Parts: sequence; structure tokens; C-alpha cells
Amino acid sequence: MITDSQIEGWLREDLGHHDVTNQVPGETAGRLVAKAAGVAAGLDAAERVFEYLDVDVTDRVADGTSVDAGKPILSVEGPARDVLRGERVAVNVTGHASGIATRTHRAVERARQVSESVRVAATRKTTPGLRGLEKRAVVAGGGDTHRLDLSHAVMVKDNHITEMGLERAVEHFDDRASLTTKLEVEVETPADAPKAAAAGADIVLLDNMDPATVRTALDRLAEAGHDDTLTEASGGITMETVADYAAAGVDVVSMGSLTHSAPSLDLSFRTGE
Amino acid sequence: MITDSQIEGWLREDLGHHDVTNQVPGETAGRLVAKAAGVAAGLDAAERVFEYLDVDVTDRVADGTSVDAGKPILSVEGPARDVLRGERVAVNVTGHASGIATRTHRAVERARQVSESVRVAATRKTTPGLRGLEKRAVVAGGGDTHRLDLSHAVMVKDNHITEMGLERAVEHFDDRASLTTKLEVEVETPADAPKAAAAGADIVLLDNMDPATVRTALDRLAEAGHDDTLTEASGGITMETVADYAAAGVDVVSMGSLTHSAPSLDLSFRTGE
Amino acid sequence: MITDSQIEGWLREDLGHHDVTNQVPGETAGRLVAKAAGVAAGLDAAERVFEYLDVDVTDRVADGTSVDAGKPILSVEGPARDVLRGERVAVNVTGHASGIATRTHRAVERARQVSESVRVAATRKTTPGLRGLEKRAVVAGGGDTHRLDLSHAVMVKDNHITEMGLERAVEHFDDRASLTTKLEVEVETPADAPKAAAAGADIVLLDNMDPATVRTALDRLAEAGHDDTLTEASGGITMETVADYAAAGVDVVSMGSLTHSAPSLDLSFRTGE
Amino acid sequence: MITDSQIEGWLREDLGHHDVTNQVPGETAGRLVAKAAGVAAGLDAAERVFEYLDVDVTDRVADGTSVDAGKPILSVEGPARDVLRGERVAVNVTGHASGIATRTHRAVERARQVSESVRVAATRKTTPGLRGLEKRAVVAGGGDTHRLDLSHAVMVKDNHITEMGLERAVEHFDDRASLTTKLEVEVETPADAPKAAAAGADIVLLDNMDPATVRTALDRLAEAGHDDTLTEASGGITMETVADYAAAGVDVVSMGSLTHSAPSLDLSFRTGE
Amino acid sequence: MITDSQIEGWLREDLGHHDVTNQVPGETAGRLVAKAAGVAAGLDAAERVFEYLDVDVTDRVADGTSVDAGKPILSVEGPARDVLRGERVAVNVTGHASGIATRTHRAVERARQVSESVRVAATRKTTPGLRGLEKRAVVAGGGDTHRLDLSHAVMVKDNHITEMGLERAVEHFDDRASLTTKLEVEVETPADAPKAAAAGADIVLLDNMDPATVRTALDRLAEAGHDDTLTEASGGITMETVADYAAAGVDVVSMGSLTHSAPSLDLSFRTGE
Amino acid sequence: MITDSQIEGWLREDLGHHDVTNQVPGETAGRLVAKAAGVAAGLDAAERVFEYLDVDVTDRVADGTSVDAGKPILSVEGPARDVLRGERVAVNVTGHASGIATRTHRAVERARQVSESVRVAATRKTTPGLRGLEKRAVVAGGGDTHRLDLSHAVMVKDNHITEMGLERAVEHFDDRASLTTKLEVEVETPADAPKAAAAGADIVLLDNMDPATVRTALDRLAEAGHDDTLTEASGGITMETVADYAAAGVDVVSMGSLTHSAPSLDLSFRTGE
Repeated sequence: MITDSQIEGWLREDLGHHDVTNQVPGETAGRLVAKAAGVAAGLDAAERVFEYLDVDVTDRVADGTSVDAGKPILSVEGPARDVLRGERVAVNVTGHASGIATRTHRAVERARQVSESVRVAATRKTTPGLRGLEKRAVVAGGGDTHRLDLSHAVMVKDNHITEMGLERAVEHFDDRASLTTKLEVEVETPADAPKAAAAGADIVLLDNMDPATVRTALDRLAEAGHDDTLTEASGGITMETVADYAAAGVDVVSMGSLTHSAPSLDLSFRTGE
Repeated sequence: MITDSQIEGWLREDLGHHDVTNQVPGETAGRLVAKAAGVAAGLDAAERVFEYLDVDVTDRVADGTSVDAGKPILSVEGPARDVLRGERVAVNVTGHASGIATRTHRAVERARQVSESVRVAATRKTTPGLRGLEKRAVVAGGGDTHRLDLSHAVMVKDNHITEMGLERAVEHFDDRASLTTKLEVEVETPADAPKAAAAGADIVLLDNMDPATVRTALDRLAEAGHDDTLTEASGGITMETVADYAAAGVDVVSMGSLTHSAPSLDLSFRTGE
Repeated sequence: MITDSQIEGWLREDLGHHDVTNQVPGETAGRLVAKAAGVAAGLDAAERVFEYLDVDVTDRVADGTSVDAGKPILSVEGPARDVLRGERVAVNVTGHASGIATRTHRAVERARQVSESVRVAATRKTTPGLRGLEKRAVVAGGGDTHRLDLSHAVMVKDNHITEMGLERAVEHFDDRASLTTKLEVEVETPADAPKAAAAGADIVLLDNMDPATVRTALDRLAEAGHDDTLTEASGGITMETVADYAAAGVDVVSMGSLTHSAPSLDLSFRTGE
Repeated sequence: MITDSQIEGWLREDLGHHDVTNQVPGETAGRLVAKAAGVAAGLDAAERVFEYLDVDVTDRVADGTSVDAGKPILSVEGPARDVLRGERVAVNVTGHASGIATRTHRAVERARQVSESVRVAATRKTTPGLRGLEKRAVVAGGGDTHRLDLSHAVMVKDNHITEMGLERAVEHFDDRASLTTKLEVEVETPADAPKAAAAGADIVLLDNMDPATVRTALDRLAEAGHDDTLTEASGGITMETVADYAAAGVDVVSMGSLTHSAPSLDLSFRTGE
Repeated sequence: MITDSQIEGWLREDLGHHDVTNQVPGETAGRLVAKAAGVAAGLDAAERVFEYLDVDVTDRVADGTSVDAGKPILSVEGPARDVLRGERVAVNVTGHASGIATRTHRAVERARQVSESVRVAATRKTTPGLRGLEKRAVVAGGGDTHRLDLSHAVMVKDNHITEMGLERAVEHFDDRASLTTKLEVEVETPADAPKAAAAGADIVLLDNMDPATVRTALDRLAEAGHDDTLTEASGGITMETVADYAAAGVDVVSMGSLTHSAPSLDLSFRTGE
Repeated sequence: MITDSQIEGWLREDLGHHDVTNQVPGETAGRLVAKAAGVAAGLDAAERVFEYLDVDVTDRVADGTSVDAGKPILSVEGPARDVLRGERVAVNVTGHASGIATRTHRAVERARQVSESVRVAATRKTTPGLRGLEKRAVVAGGGDTHRLDLSHAVMVKDNHITEMGLERAVEHFDDRASLTTKLEVEVETPADAPKAAAAGADIVLLDNMDPATVRTALDRLAEAGHDDTLTEASGGITMETVADYAAAGVDVVSMGSLTHSAPSLDLSFRTGE
């Protein structure tokens, strides 16, 4: 959910104390138009920006819609002053979210060419202040949000294992986390994968392994009878390598770049008629 | 200035209601380390994140410092629980700002190879909620913030000119804007450039022109005796074309992609001595 | 995490615009003292209240500590004016959280008398504005937070099943939820329990059943080979019946009253020496 | 007044970043229904929750209405997604406020059986963040808010009197408080009651006395000609003893448990036709 | 209490996104100095501004101190950048509050020349966002805050009396207001004054009467045996007439201009040793 | 732009937790009426106050309208309770802004009697929290906002010049400020004025000079061929001296008293019919 407080902050930082050029009388219409093909996202945020300004949103596509260049994705009508005030913020937020959805969509396409069931997931490497928006943009692009915040799923990390040993670390957090929370265990070697599964991991994270090593880890899990345990590959995976990881047979491939390095989708805002 | 309210929002969205894995006793140290070469920025934000959590920042580089892979850019010491709580947010905000500074730095380098005095500027195409941070990251990378918000400088646009005519539009806003505010006029053709200067523009924005057309516009300005008027090229300028625009002789080249499409600089956070 | 914004709001609502009686010169010490036996919780919040006011917290027990009447649980030192300002808010927030921890502790004790492994969990029936504080108070009392918010775990409800059928409903949400999210399915009859497990539920919620019916449902699950699926009993369970449900063999018994109806633990604040 | 900022905070803490199960198309109706008899309160807050979500409130009872089990107290219509989003928060806030109103109502009933004019009042022992809501719930139950915050009325306490002596303490605060502010003086013995009245107290607070001692204090006041001074009994008064205090003849009996220990009123939210 | 959120808002509105001229290295000292004689107020707010910026406040006078031109009222030391950032806000807030305290002090002086016990009070005509600060500035100047907000004291107004009649109006609000709340009744004629007192008013407000009429009203009250009831004159009272009203014998004279029309006290901020 | 958060803060500080006298049933109309002649401003803020309360604004004059005593400037209709709740805040904010607009208008009138083109400008000496409102009120009165915040225009000050020398100081900031930002240089003597202009100042601020010295400075500028450089007189200029400064020939005369010492415009709010 985008809150009015966020909208206020976004508008305030763009308008400043006295926005002379927006002091325009009369009513106008406006359309947010894609200038390049991509997947639309963040439209709920753009809608809320205009609603905050008492501008009517007369039409919009749904998040996740694939759009071609030239296609309007949101249409508004209202006082010219308020339409102009919302324009830049609406373009910025939708361009940002749609850029993430578009990049995710491409990563999913590549991964799905080699594996029908693989999921492509985001990470917690999001832009401060926009966690929810970016995670939902990943969903719009066909991806998996992965854990939404630190309280959503427990990740047993390298340093926990170094300190307590794998089994005790898993037990430690299993005791402390809710039964409603999944527990994921990060392993650095194929040999540790079945140990993590045996210790009770809901998901085994194969960290910073190349695709061949991932395959070995999956073999080790299968040999130990843990082929039902969910597996995730993570660490330095790019648009170029995502398909190789998917081909290796993991359940989910996660990529920080979906959210932290997706270029904005090029959008423009056109007023009048 | 980064405010405590922003910090709170960033931490809250990452921690959630019950962050089990951060419940670690004792003290620890940590370092934010670059994993790739780039220009550091956003360190004031990272510092404030840790200060909010009562973690000491023991060392940091200045914004604008060029860093190599492996170099620590911020060091902290404090309760392990609080160091861990700040880690992800600090990495995200610094990686984001440093990505912008790094991209700006590269654009400036390219432009300066052909023009000693040209400036490379950002636009208002920033990420909602991070206007100030991103503009200051542009400065860290050697760029010009361009106007910070709609109240900072007046931009007379295409549609104002269509409606009122160029001269009357300039006069209209000159009357309404403060004497302390610069007035920039957007023109679509070389022929309009000297008209804008004559009407009183502090800056003439050459919009969506190719480098050759920019050159023609600058000639028209010089012919009309307006070579002192500041000029800016804007619209679809990329890392590939920025040098061509700089070579054309404008005072400033502006690029939305500095802020809306810069990939994050790869950083990691390492705890322990 | 308790944020400064929350602290501000709590202090502002108690102090008003001009708190005459707090205008006291000099320094003072103060102690938060239990007037009845119970389990302490919410001390991080009380600590932050005093820190916001620049009052030193010199000692405190850990959340989850069992305290007897007369025992100090938090000690402070600072300007008398600021100690007095924090007093009432600190008592209110700690009394509230400790009340929840105390009630949870008693429910856990009753349940554990009949089952060594059963967990007692809270629900989303919390006091608006205090979700995190109350969930952590449940943990302090030895309970399970259950899901922290709607995004934390997916609950497939009665009405979803009515509309789509059990299997399709589970599949529907399994597709839409992250792999990192557990999926719990609410069933109304013992016969539906194994269907839910077969459909892929991580947890089967036995809703509004009496202990005998719960036992039947567990039998049905075992007969169908799903004895590994987690089970939860919920709906109208009280301090009087919690042991009966625990004895029935479920993994978790959840009770809304832990958070929405726990009387405050009686505390007082004593200033001086 | 409930503010939008509060509503936002309540919704945000319950929804999290991606609430999959609320993504339901179409419109729906819903009703908040009492599952036990009690006194309704907090309906303005529930109404504002739904309004924030653009859900229409089509009907509601007034705060202070006595309701029977099964009776709807608030009805709404709107987009299913938004009705579902508001449901839990609306139930939680209304259940909490109605629990307080119900408990207050019962205390008032008991007190009024023995005294027609006695008032039952709350204290400042409220849940942080909900001061106004809880005080208005006390009013809905027929009670007196007592002072709303520290600036509302001046309370001369034990420690002030110890330090300055009763007369000088009253004079001290009388000088500093506005003429529009009442001044209440806390006394520990019957003998001090007439002294407090003589010193100018608007209200004499008989602190931690049993009903017989309260009666003695009232006699002392009458003997000294101060029978017009308002009197209040406070300190450890329960549902069991409230009538005894009322019978003793004080003007107001105050009870912290009205707000800090009232169990929630059991409510449910039902969607569909 | 001034909150950090307020401080943030004040700083943010003055600094904007990139305050180039504050980017000064090193440490500095600074002093807030009166350029005209007056009464200092709002120093807690100035202090908190600097503390928010981590600048040390090394000395300050107390609110209510009479200062001569040239006298330093607050001294600070810290990073030059942060001292400069706080300077303007500190001057603005202290100048504003001190202007109010100074004006109040002068009104009190005039009133006290003719009446030793009269109080001069403010109203609710304050600057939005600064209610508490301004009311406390009135206290610093020797005045009475009058009611702090609408919930602090009940004012029975003209229109209530027109609608319900004086006696029923007083009874109506007496029933609804807490016993801890004073009840003030606004009367338009001397004849109504004793009626208000008889009905139970704690304070009788003599509204928009000239000093002679005020005297008549006081006579009417005395004749009816209500000379103990507090009386207030209000409505259009200026620095020129305040003494006449005081001389008439009322207990309190209230003036909106104390807060809404006090010129700022002239202050400057000087940096360097 | 006035934000809902501001409105909330203003209402909350005036209403408190339980505003008994506003609990009035039914609908009412109300009008904000000028009791003295002046220039209206701040009506957007008053409008937003009522909209926040769901009260309809049925009519209003535009900011900058000259109004006579008795003239309604804003009319509303809605639930009596909510009209009453907004009344005081609306009067306070509009009276404050209109006082500033009125004072500005008078200063402009005086200045324009001797100079057709001179502008009268405000400063950064505004009331904390109301920067935008007050600057726009200055515009409503016919004045110039001057710089809106520290990031809007660069002011090279006395101390910068002392430290670096005039030329280097200007160069220093010219390098650091955006090309879109004007640079103003403060000079203390007529001799420095042409130096500032030569160094590249967009505006030369003639600080604390009497009108004759201002005239000398302008002569020095003209002699040096800098008559096109904008000039501003500032420092201790009052309603009495503003015309003298205007007559001296500067482009802009700035006065802190426009915002920090303007008495409120007298307004009343009338309900009914």
C-alpha cells in the first residue's frame, strides 16, 4: 500500500515552496505514455499521486501489462494546476517501477526457456523508501518477491554457521522463529546442502556457486533423499547467466540487480485534448 | 540533509515487526567495502543510519572520493544487534548514491575530453523520496544538480510558448518569479534560440536537437550577439552521445539517466574485527 | 523496533502544550517497580522513551524476565523535569507489554503441562499502533508471534475455499505467494484436514473445533500420511481450555486474548534516592 | 479526532509490503457484528479506516449504544480488496474501544446503584498512542475522562507536598497554572483533606484510602465547611469495590483498570451481501 | 515540548535539497544576540534545533529573562556546517517567541500598574503549528496561557446560549465535561453575568464590553453574592486599553494580539570566537 | 502546497483529545469575514483545513484580493461538528497570511509611488513551519518571495569575503552552485559593488546602507559599466524608509518585517444561515 504520507513527501520534494509555472487556470487532461516497450508497474502509486491532488484517473492499465511504445498507460482529468503538479512524480515513480518489472520480465523469459517451473526472485537490495513498490513491481514482471523484510523469513547465514555450527544454528533459529515463518539456510559448498536440509531448512540457499557447482549441490541433496527441499541459487547472477542457473535445476534464482540496477522505463506525460 | 524520519522509514521497511536473526549479543565492528571501482556518495546517509541506531561511525571517506575494489569506505563499531540492523539499509543507500556518482563521473570525463568548461547536469527525473540524496550524488560525481525542484528555477516550456507566444510567456513568468530565480526557456528550433535570449532568458534550453542542430542554434545566438547567454542541451542524451553534445559547445548537457538509470555500485558489508 | 516518531507521539499525547507540574529543577533518579509478579516486556520501549528525553537508563532487566512484586525492572537518572515527563508513558507501555507477556507465560505453562512441544501463539488481534511491541511481548512470555502481518504468511480462508474449492484455492495462492512464504489453510471439518495437507498446505488450521474434533482431525491427517504437516487449533480458545487443545496433540494453539484482553501488569514509578 | 496519519500507521503495520490474499476483484459489502453484549465505541475510528481506503460506510450505530450479541454496528460497501484491507484494523480498534466502554458502563452501573450523582472516571493509565480514543470510549460508557493530559489539570502530588508543604505547594502551582485550569490536590490522610480545600484545591483527591477512611475524610471536609469542594477517591479501586467507594459519598471514583485492563469486546467482520 | 519532527520540518523548509554555502569545514562557535531590549523566550526550541544538528549549546539564559540590546542569549559550538544550518531557524523561532514574551510583558506591566492581582491572558488565536511554543512564550512574559486547546476548558458561547438558554446550556456542558475541566460562560450583558455564575460557571467571560460596562457587570455579580466567581474581560482589548480593563477589577484580561500580532524581537546570530 | 500532515498538526493542537463543545448535531453554513480592510491570502490553507474535515467550501476569493471590512472571503457548508472544528484554525491561518499580504501591499504601494519598477521582497525571516505559506502571502500582496530556501539562490556573505576575498569567494561558489542558481553577493561599501558585479554576481546586495549610500553604490556600478546588474537594498528597512530606498533606484528592497512582524488581519468566522 502506498500511503498519503509518502505521496506528500514525493510532491513536496518536487514542488518546493512556490511553483510559479504550475499556476495555470482551467481544466486539462493528461496521459502517461510509454516511449519504449516494457511491462507497466507502479500504476497504483501514480494513481494515488493524482488522487491526492484531487485529479480524476479516468483510465489505467493493470500492473503487469506488457505495453508497446506509444501506448497510454494512465489517463487523468482535472484542474490544470494539479495535473501539472502530479506529472513529474507520476512519471518518475511509474518509470522506476516499470523499469524493474521490465527487467524482471526479461530475466523470467530467459529462465523459463530452459525451465518451466523455475522462479526468478528479487532480494532485499531495494531502494530505501520503496521496498513495497519495488517488490510489487517484481511481481508485475512475473518474479517472486523473496522475503519482504527481515521478519518475513529467517535466513541462517554463513557467520551464524561459523559460530554455532550448522545444526545448532538451524535449531537456534527454529526455536526463535514463528511456526509461520520459513527458515532458509545459506550454504557455501555442495556438501553442506544435504546437511542443511537434514537440519530442517525449508529452503537451501546455494550461495555464490557457479552453475556446475549448483548442479553438484542438487545431486548431493537428491542422493540424501532431500529432493523435495526447495533450493535457491544466489550471488552475482546476471541477465547473461540466469538461464544457466535455471538450467541447473534450482527452484528459484535470485538477482539483486532486478531492483537495484534496473534502468527506468522511458515514459512521457502529455497534456491537452 | 537526511532526516531522522527518513532513516526511520528505511529501517522500519527492512526490519519488520520481529527481526529474529538480529538478536545477537555483544559488540562488533563492520566495514562497508566497495566490490568495484567507482565514486563514493551517500555516505552522510549511511552515517546517519548508524547514528540513529547508536552505532559509532569510526571512519569514512568523503562523498566524491574515487574508490577501488576492496577499499573500505565506512567503518563502524557498536552493539552487534544494531550494526546488523543498519547493514542492509546502509549498503542499499550508499550503493544507490554511489552508482549515480559513478555514472556522473564517467559522463563528465567523456564530456571534458572535448570541452574543458562544459557541465554535465541531472534533471528532475529522480527516484521519489530521494531527490536531495540523488542530486548531491550527482555533485559528488562532478556534475551539476540542475534545478532542485520546481520552485528553484523557472522553465518556460513548449506549451507555454504555444499558448502565449515566446515573448509574452517569458514576460509572464519574469513578472511572477522572484528576481532571485533564473529563468530558462525551452526552444525547439535554432531560430527560436536568439528570440529566447532576447526575451530575457537566463538559460536557453536546446530541446531534443542532435549535436549538429545544437551547433546551428549556438551560431544563431552568436550572430544575434547573445553568446553570453547560457545554453543547455537536453533530451535523449546518452553516455555515447554526451561528448558530441559537449563538443558542440553548449555550457551544460543534461541527462535524466544519471539519476533514473544508474546501476548501483556493488558494495558489501563485512562484520568482525 | 520502536521508532522516535512513536515515542514523540506517546509523549505529546500525555504532556499537552504546557505541563506545569514537570517544571522541576535539578536531577533525580527513578525506578520502574513491579507491584505484582509477572513477566517483564516492553523494556526497550521504556528505555527509548527515556533516551528520547536525554535521561540515562542505568539498569534494566531483559524482556522475558520473571519478576516478583517489589522488584525494580528499570532504573534511570537525569534532569528531574525529563524523568517526570517520561514516567507515565514508561509505566503505561511497560505495564501493557508485561501484561501480555505474563498472560502468555501462564498460557504456555498450562499447555506445557500436557505437551512438551506445543506452542502457544498470538494472532493479528492486536492493539492498533502496537503490533510489533505486542508480538515481541508474546515472545517474551514464551509464545509464538504467529504471522506478524498479512504479508508474512498466506492464510487460505473459508471464503476462498467456498469460492474456488480447496485445491484450486491453495494452488491459486501458491502461485502468487513467494517461495519464502508459508501457506496455511483453514479447515472447518476433520475431513478437510488431509485434503488441505495434500494440496500443499504448510500448516493446517483447525478452526473453531472442540478438542475432541481436533483430535479426530489429527487422526485423519495421520491416516492419510500427513502427520508431518504442522497443525494449529484456533477460535475461542481460553486460559481454561488451552491445555485441552494442547493435549489433543496440535503443534500450535493460538489465542487472540493474549494480546487483546490481557490486563496490564501493575507497575509503579518511584523517584528519589 | 482520529487522524489520517494514525490510520496509515495502523494499516501499514497490518498489511506489510505485499498482501497477496487481499488481491480480490469486484465489490463487496461487510458488517462489523457484536458477538457479545456490550457498549459500542471507537466507531469513528473504524469509519475513518474505511474512508481512508475509499470504502463507503453505509450505516453505523452511535458511540455509547448498548448492543446485543449478533447486532451489526457498522456496515460498509466498496472494492473487495479495500474492504478486506480495513477489516482487521476496524475490528481491533472497535473491539478495544468497546471493551473499555463496556467495562466503564458496568462500573458506572454498580456505582449508581448506591449513589445517583457519583461519577466514575478514568486515569492517564492509557495505552500509548490511543489516549483520545480511550478517553472518548470512557465517555461512551458513561464515565468521566478525568484529565486528558498533564496540561489539562494540575495535580499537586505527594512529593510536591513533602518538599514544599501543602499550602506552599498549592500556592506555587496556583501561580503557575492558568486561571482556566483546575487544581487537584492529592492527600494521604483524612486530616489533610480540609487543609487542601482551605489552600484552594478545586478537587481533593483521597489517595489509596479504604472506603471507611474516605468517609472520615469527607466528614473532616464537612466539619471544616468545605462540603462544596469536589472529592475524588483513587488508588486500587476495582469492579468489586467501586460501589463501596461510591457509597462513601465522593463525587468521583477513578479507576485505571477502565483503560489499561479492559478485555476487548468480541466482534467479528462478515463480508458478503 | 518541541519534538524532533517539528525541528526536522523547520530545518528542511529552510535548507532545501543542496545548501552549497553551508559546506564549510572546521568547527565554529556562535552566539544568538538580542539587538533590542525584550524578554527572551523559545530558547528550548533553539536549543533543540542545535541539538538535532549535534551542535553543543554551551550557555543560554532562561525563558522569561529580560535582556538588553547586545546581550547574548544562547551560545553554541560545533561543526561550522551544522552551526550555519541551525542559525536562521534558531533566530526565527527565538525572535518570534521573544516578540510574544516581550509584548506580553509590556501588557502585564501596564495592567499591574493599576491592579496588583490581575492576570493578562492569551487566547487560541495562535500561529498554526506553534500553539505550545507561543503559549509558553506568554508565560515567559508573565502572562496566563488561558485554555491551551478546545479540550482544556469548556467555553459556553453566545450561540449555545441562544439555542438552549443560559441555564440549560451550562447544565448541558457540565454533564458532558469532566469534573477536572473548568467551565467558562460568555455573557454579552452585565445582567447575564450573575445568571452565569448562578448556573455554575467557574469563570464568567465579559465579552466585548467597554471598561465601564465591565465594571457594571462586576457590580451585578457582587450584588448577587458571586464576587468569588472568576471574571474575564475579552474582545478588542489593546495595549492602550488593557490598563482600563484591569482597573475595572476583572481577574483576567485576555488579548489575542499577544500571539497573533506581536512583532518579532530583533536578534542576530554571530559566528566566530 | 499545504499538506494534509500540516493540517492534521494544526487541528490536533487546537482540538485536544475530547472537544466537548463541538459535539453538535446537524449541518451548518459558515463564512470567514474580514473585520478590517486588507489583502486576502492563505485561503488555500483554509480551504484545505475544511476539506480535510469533509466540509464543502462553497465560495472563496482568490489570494491577493483586496477586501473591505464586512466582506466574506470564504464560505463553507457541512456537518456542524466539523465546521466548528475547522473554524479557529481557518481564522488563525488566514488572518496570519492576510496580515502579511496586507503589510506587503502597503510597502509595495509606498515604494511604487517613487519607482515604477522596484520590487519589494521578503527574506528568510519567516515563522518556522510556515515558509511556503508566508512567501506566497508576500506574492499575494504584490511582493517578491526572494529566495525560498538556502538552496534556491547562493548568497555570498560578509564572512565568506573576509575569509577568501571577494573574487575568490564568488568563484568558489560559482563552481559549486548549479548553473540554474543565481548568485548574490553582499557588499558593505559602495566601492565593493562594482567588484562584486565584475566577479560575476547576478545580484549585488547593498547591505545596511542608508539611502544616500545606496545611491552612491549604484553610481559606482554605473560608472563601471555594470548598470545591468540587479541590485538589492537590505537591512533595517521599515515602512517609513522603504520609499527612500526605492527612490534611490535599486531593483529590489527587501524587508524581514513583512513576514516576521506583520500583525494578523482581523477576521471572524460566523456560523448559521
